[in-house]
Amino acid sequence: MTVVRRKRSGRRPGSPDTRAEILAAARDAFARDGFERSSIRRIANDAGVDPALVHHYFGTKDQLFLAAIEAPFDPMEVLPKVLAGGEDQLGENLIRFFLSIWDSPTGNRAAAFLRSAITRPEMSHLVRQFITTQIVRRGLKLKFPELDHAELRGALVASQLLGMAVTRHIFGIEALTRLTVDELAAIYGPTVQRYITMDFAELRNQDAD
Amino acid sequence: MTVVRRKRSGRRPGSPDTRAEILAAARDAFARDGFERSSIRRIANDAGVDPALVHHYFGTKDQLFLAAIEAPFDPMEVLPKVLAGGEDQLGENLIRFFLSIWDSPTGNRAAAFLRSAITRPEMSHLVRQFITTQIVRRGLKLKFPELDHAELRGALVASQLLGMAVTRHIFGIEALTRLTVDELAAIYGPTVQRYITMDFAELRNQDAD
Repeated sequence: MTVVRRKRSGRRPGSPDTRAEILAAARDAFARDGFERSSIRRIANDAGVDPALVHHYFGTKDQLFLAAIEAPFDPMEVLPKVLAGGEDQLGENLIRFFLSIWDSPTGNRAAAFLRSAITRPEMSHLVRQFITTQIVRRGLKLKFPELDHAELRGALVASQLLGMAVTRHIFGIEALTRLTVDELAAIYGPTVQRYITMDFAELRNQDAD
Repeated sequence: MTVVRRKRSGRRPGSPDTRAEILAAARDAFARDGFERSSIRRIANDAGVDPALVHHYFGTKDQLFLAAIEAPFDPMEVLPKVLAGGEDQLGENLIRFFLSIWDSPTGNRAAAFLRSAITRPEMSHLVRQFITTQIVRRGLKLKFPELDHAELRGALVASQLLGMAVTRHIFGIEALTRLTVDELAAIYGPTVQRYITMDFAELRNQDAD
């Protein structure tokens, strides 16, 4: 597993062409069939390699998906850290974690990921799956199986995190770039916390007023 | 004025090349010198035309700026509508207005604007100016001259509006696309309202705890 992860982010001797072909086949399959209905066996077949080689290079289907879309992080590695502060701190800790990616050397990769996700329709489709299957299904639902409207909550959280990334890191709006991480966590944390915990049933009753 | 506005959005007989040259010169000038330090005289000179022609085609410098960046709306036309419901409704009404753009035929133009703003660095620079000078200076500061941290509030509001646009309209996340405007206004309205009204002094004290 460790070897596979290292391979994903670094350069190693081996078969870069084969890796690239597997990733291209994976992108096609995920975009065409969706994450759930795609299989490593089929992707391996499309790339003309043995399924064992796909597993060897990329690990699980989840990990292959993250590699295929060039995800700047693996939600499953992140979640324990974000949850360490307790559920009341979830909003603030999500903001802190998210900012730590953008303010690190990985930030450029995250920006490239977001740009590509926004401009290339086939990537938008994959990122939609990333948010709904990887973050919501593997993250929110796994940790909070009792939580209702998990997909909506995940999408709302994503909408504020991505909006912050676009305005602060892509547009570079100075009013946001000059804030400290503590200040950003105090401003955006309650927004994210509310999206995770708010009562949607109540909301619909309000609408009906 | 009305004629100028119609010219901006439609096709008319005249000098499309001259118009395009003025717009290109304007984009260069705004990107190079910023909105404040750019002048119609200089832009006209760069485009090799008389300043009167720039005024004739585009109106004021503000309107030329909006045309140059292909802004999907003019904040000054929008503000009275958004404020009509009173200050307590500002958050919800901003969400409703913003959604009305994306759900209208102009939505494609808004999506193109956002894609271009995110992928082309020179456009990011112009959109940063659009948010800080057009929305904040002409909008928030003009209507609420007593409001502190207007630039920050404008940037925070932009971060949630743009994040909603990216996740709902560009990624098309189903959990968001299937919500009604009323539901979206009830969810996102309080976020935007808080960004406009929250006390930042208190926030900083909290951080120091």
